[in-house]
Amino acid sequence: MSIPRRAVRELFNPRAIALVGATDKSGWSVSTYENLRAGGFPGTVYLVNPRTEVVHGERAYPSLSALPGPVDLAFVMVPTTAVLPVLREGAGLGIRSYVVLTAGFGETGEEGRRREDDLAAFARRHGLTVLGPNGNGYLNVAANVMPYGLPLPAPLPAGPVGIVLQSGALASSLLAFAQARAIGISLLTSMGNETLVSVTDVVDYLVDDPATRVIALFLESVRRPADFARAVRRAAAAGKPVVAMKIGSSPLASSTARAHTGALVGDDDVVDAAFRQLGVVRVRALEDLMITAGLLGEIGPLPGSRLGVVTPSGGASEIIADRAEAEGLSLPPFAPTTAARLKAILPDFATVQNPLDVTGYVVVDRTLLGRALDVVVQDPGIDAVLLLSELPRVPPAGDPAPMTALFGSTAERIRTSPRPVVVVGTMLTDVTDYGRTVAQRTGFPLVVGGIEHGMSALGAAARWSPPRACGPRVRGRGPAPVVSGAATGVWTEHQAARLLADNGVPVVPSAFASDEDGAAAAAESLGYPVVVKAVAPGLLHKSDAGAVRLHLINAGEVRRAHREVLAAARARDAAATGTLIQPHRTGGVELLVGVVRDPAWGLALAVGLGGIWVEALRDSALRLLPVDAAEIRRALGELRGADVLRGTRGTEPADLDVVAGAIAAVARLAEGLGDRLEALEINPLLVRGTRVEALDALVTWRP
Amino acid sequence: MSIPRRAVRELFNPRAIALVGATDKSGWSVSTYENLRAGGFPGTVYLVNPRTEVVHGERAYPSLSALPGPVDLAFVMVPTTAVLPVLREGAGLGIRSYVVLTAGFGETGEEGRRREDDLAAFARRHGLTVLGPNGNGYLNVAANVMPYGLPLPAPLPAGPVGIVLQSGALASSLLAFAQARAIGISLLTSMGNETLVSVTDVVDYLVDDPATRVIALFLESVRRPADFARAVRRAAAAGKPVVAMKIGSSPLASSTARAHTGALVGDDDVVDAAFRQLGVVRVRALEDLMITAGLLGEIGPLPGSRLGVVTPSGGASEIIADRAEAEGLSLPPFAPTTAARLKAILPDFATVQNPLDVTGYVVVDRTLLGRALDVVVQDPGIDAVLLLSELPRVPPAGDPAPMTALFGSTAERIRTSPRPVVVVGTMLTDVTDYGRTVAQRTGFPLVVGGIEHGMSALGAAARWSPPRACGPRVRGRGPAPVVSGAATGVWTEHQAARLLADNGVPVVPSAFASDEDGAAAAAESLGYPVVVKAVAPGLLHKSDAGAVRLHLINAGEVRRAHREVLAAARARDAAATGTLIQPHRTGGVELLVGVVRDPAWGLALAVGLGGIWVEALRDSALRLLPVDAAEIRRALGELRGADVLRGTRGTEPADLDVVAGAIAAVARLAEGLGDRLEALEINPLLVRGTRVEALDALVTWRP
Repeated sequence: MSIPRRAVRELFNPRAIALVGATDKSGWSVSTYENLRAGGFPGTVYLVNPRTEVVHGERAYPSLSALPGPVDLAFVMVPTTAVLPVLREGAGLGIRSYVVLTAGFGETGEEGRRREDDLAAFARRHGLTVLGPNGNGYLNVAANVMPYGLPLPAPLPAGPVGIVLQSGALASSLLAFAQARAIGISLLTSMGNETLVSVTDVVDYLVDDPATRVIALFLESVRRPADFARAVRRAAAAGKPVVAMKIGSSPLASSTARAHTGALVGDDDVVDAAFRQLGVVRVRALEDLMITAGLLGEIGPLPGSRLGVVTPSGGASEIIADRAEAEGLSLPPFAPTTAARLKAILPDFATVQNPLDVTGYVVVDRTLLGRALDVVVQDPGIDAVLLLSELPRVPPAGDPAPMTALFGSTAERIRTSPRPVVVVGTMLTDVTDYGRTVAQRTGFPLVVGGIEHGMSALGAAARWSPPRACGPRVRGRGPAPVVSGAATGVWTEHQAARLLADNGVPVVPSAFASDEDGAAAAAESLGYPVVVKAVAPGLLHKSDAGAVRLHLINAGEVRRAHREVLAAARARDAAATGTLIQPHRTGGVELLVGVVRDPAWGLALAVGLGGIWVEALRDSALRLLPVDAAEIRRALGELRGADVLRGTRGTEPADLDVVAGAIAAVARLAEGLGDRLEALEINPLLVRGTRVEALDALVTWRP
Repeated sequence: MSIPRRAVRELFNPRAIALVGATDKSGWSVSTYENLRAGGFPGTVYLVNPRTEVVHGERAYPSLSALPGPVDLAFVMVPTTAVLPVLREGAGLGIRSYVVLTAGFGETGEEGRRREDDLAAFARRHGLTVLGPNGNGYLNVAANVMPYGLPLPAPLPAGPVGIVLQSGALASSLLAFAQARAIGISLLTSMGNETLVSVTDVVDYLVDDPATRVIALFLESVRRPADFARAVRRAAAAGKPVVAMKIGSSPLASSTARAHTGALVGDDDVVDAAFRQLGVVRVRALEDLMITAGLLGEIGPLPGSRLGVVTPSGGASEIIADRAEAEGLSLPPFAPTTAARLKAILPDFATVQNPLDVTGYVVVDRTLLGRALDVVVQDPGIDAVLLLSELPRVPPAGDPAPMTALFGSTAERIRTSPRPVVVVGTMLTDVTDYGRTVAQRTGFPLVVGGIEHGMSALGAAARWSPPRACGPRVRGRGPAPVVSGAATGVWTEHQAARLLADNGVPVVPSAFASDEDGAAAAAESLGYPVVVKAVAPGLLHKSDAGAVRLHLINAGEVRRAHREVLAAARARDAAATGTLIQPHRTGGVELLVGVVRDPAWGLALAVGLGGIWVEALRDSALRLLPVDAAEIRRALGELRGADVLRGTRGTEPADLDVVAGAIAAVARLAEGLGDRLEALEINPLLVRGTRVEALDALVTWRP
């Protein structure tokens, strides 16, 4: 379904553009024309309007066919019903790329949806590349191609951040913010309805675009997760981090709610898991989207999480220390040589520590901060340096030369530093025109806007890692699992247990008994104490129904239990055919292992400790399939109750390799079952040291 | 220790100011002089410098004594050792108020501390009011009195926010931010070392200051919590919310670490509890400090948490919905009449819901947003309205009149709305000069900077409530508790139990037995099963030492247990004198109830569920003493494991009134013990329905 990359490249790099439906009466037309002209578009712009000869002070042509030269891109602003005729005319003329600003399609209801389907079908048939409809166009800032229907802030800074938006209405705010914070943009796309060109197509383009070093996404929904995952993996392979803000959350489809796991796993948790496995940096605020992308575009991922901090303020130092802790960044003590060199240049009353406050004496000796920076960047125990500094907002009262010289020398120090230096301002305000001028004149780098958002960005830059070897992707499946029986409805205990056992998942031994003698014999061979349960497929809450007896220690107890549980089950369900005899296990740690289906992302594995950990605390870790044992070990380590597995309070520590191996077998089974599986849950998976056994399970098949 | 309020009022409202140590060579002097002049100070400014006759282009006088007129405030910028002589000269001349900018005092070490002590002693002896030393002065923006030693952004907007800073180095950033976001300031004080005038003194002033409607604090430490609490209660009584950012955290003093509770309670938790009980809005970022204070100053606390949301963007609506949930704000569905009226004015394809997206059609019909606002403000089911809107950053391309008219009519709609309307921008950028002009011309209100910080501020404005009737304060104590024995060292079980029982805390019955016969008789009268414990004051971990026997069901078992636990205890501690016999309790829910001493805030009560809830999850709720039963019930309700008390999974629900009553008795006892008490802990307090009993306790006395 993806658009060929060559076609997307042509869409974003036309040499001649026709504005179809151009008119002085439309703000969209005025803005698009202005943006192309003021943006310095190096190619030709044609205006098309059948009813007038002059638009925006230039000659207008009555139709695409009447244009005097070839056109690469038609920017379509005609009424809704006229859009398809324009495409038809353009296709006939060999025009392959279209931006459709016109609304009135799928977003308006059933009739619009039909109209959109017609448009999509026509475009596919004729190999047309259509961005939109119902989008504002795009800005190829790097190439000065700005077919974009809303007013732009000036100057729009060019730079490394490629932006893809599923909500075009946010573009103006993001652009104003980028301009205000001097965050440079390579390309911005307002996706509209994504009828043909999708977010994934644009991500693919940005991966190949030499002007783009980081990709920023605003997402309302990820439409084809497997394609998206593939594009994100390409970005990582190209060393381009992806930063995403994804909004909206709702509970999982109710079809999976029967299993315990369903209540634990929300859509948003699945997105979190998918992004983590894909190495996508997820942010929660628009400011963080732009600031994090800006930092990653300027500095790239940080080599580590050990930060040296140089500031002129004790209060700011403490705020940075608090935020560093929250972001998982460490501020290690300076090496002795660093401390000694700092002591030599700082005033006596300064405290030499990381974070460093060079003190208010900086007002007297303006070089203090820069000289301290020179020392700290040499410290062997840190990975990067945070310099708290601010561009001036207004010209100084007197001669600006000393101040400019100071910024110039600091910029030089940063350029020649052996470690990355990130300049962070105290609070988030605009870089003013004067500040921008000083930065340009002195080569001063990007100043990250404020400690609060800056520390979030630094945390992301230090945590960023390429996608894991597993996680959401399109791939061939392993050998087909053994499935005995018709895969329909719900499989409870003995059927589910057999499926697990047949496919390499360790299951507690059990024997089926159709009569008292069989039950007693089975108990004898399994060894006492035992558990006796009625086999009654439709009965979900057996304990509550009296259809389970625990800790039976001799044949007499087993015989009585066999009679009683069958009677109890039959009182509720006539289909009870016999009993299941199992060893009674005690002690150990109970895990919940569940696989559920997310409507968008597919099968997801949730693991958690049993009891209150999942019931009251919803303490679980989630991974999308496929997943390997190493990743499952990481997931177990994320649980708040992980210490329980590690063996606190005298319990035997669990062999996490064995546990992860058993859960990996569950994941492989689920992955192999593929589309047939709705949910699979083991509750509990009992762990005692190296012994791991599924005690009970539930499998729900898809209709 | 507080400075009289009249004296603080004089400090901030002088008619004549002398800048002592004024010199063209000092940036501080230049700025202070500029700030007074440019700020339009209506009084007289004298310059004092013994070595030159002209400073800042004006006549300078050699000393305070040489001035031609009276002075109310001396702004002191002389070298460190010359500060006290200046105060001495000023005191002789009847000058009562001083701002000391000079550093080199307590912040520099031992010698400086002595110098500061001398200064304090002299000032107290002569009734002088000194702000600083080592502070940058203050800005009384409301009265145009700006004796402040650093450059100021212009124009500094006057308004309702009073700011008190313990870190002067942050003032420039906060002022630039206030200017950038058009947040109006009444007074800003850079406290310096707080030698005499304290944060509390300034808060007290701001409570009385008619220009101030909200108080914003940046705190590194709260020096005299009881005074601070009193001032904050005064602010609440005057209807002035207090917003505070408090940084830094460290573990509690190790002296309380022996009790379980010590490990649960950090300094920062105590500050959180104190602020909550005092109704102080705690924020975690400088941007939130200013934006929240700005909103509370403009709108005041909101009447409720039900928000109507009107936006021109679907993406922004979803971000607002996500953030509202996180802030505990609700977006109820619109009333049927509201929905019908909205349907009538919105385009057909718009979805009428809360949050409302009036759609991009607003580009065609600019009045759409304002007309939708008119409808939503009438909805009876909401408490306040969020309008997503932005001041323009630059003049429009054409005639600005239609745009200005639109802002004017929206401003009028907001002024006449029956419910508070809060205008929030999408992202945090500056209000530009042009935006400021439009706001002034049209009467457009404060625009809160960005959804992210705006929703934090709205959450705070909806949650704000005046201080609780209990919590940190200076008050007379109730009747003295009964204390049998010398209050020293550590009291374990039987001594601690007696203290509890003597003071109205329900304790499990127990009897002391010095021999086997006594033990058997006690067991007989208490009823089987019983527990037998060795009485050995120095033995802390009795179970581990084998000095406890559980679930004894007859006299023979009791006799043997008596012998064995004494032997076990004596193997470790020769002082074991006999045994304690108690009924063996089973079932129920175990609580941990602890009182610990915070070095700053005094006694704090922590409650939590036993077992993993406190051990692994640190699930506890904290209150400063005094605290009443109603507040303790609220604290119990905050526990993540609160459902366990409410009786999940077949357990008997706890009678929370009885539980809270028992814990209130513990709190009263601890409060009554006052300074003698270091820590008191009941672990566990066993709860079964209406039965509540302390099973074990530990009391640590202060040396």
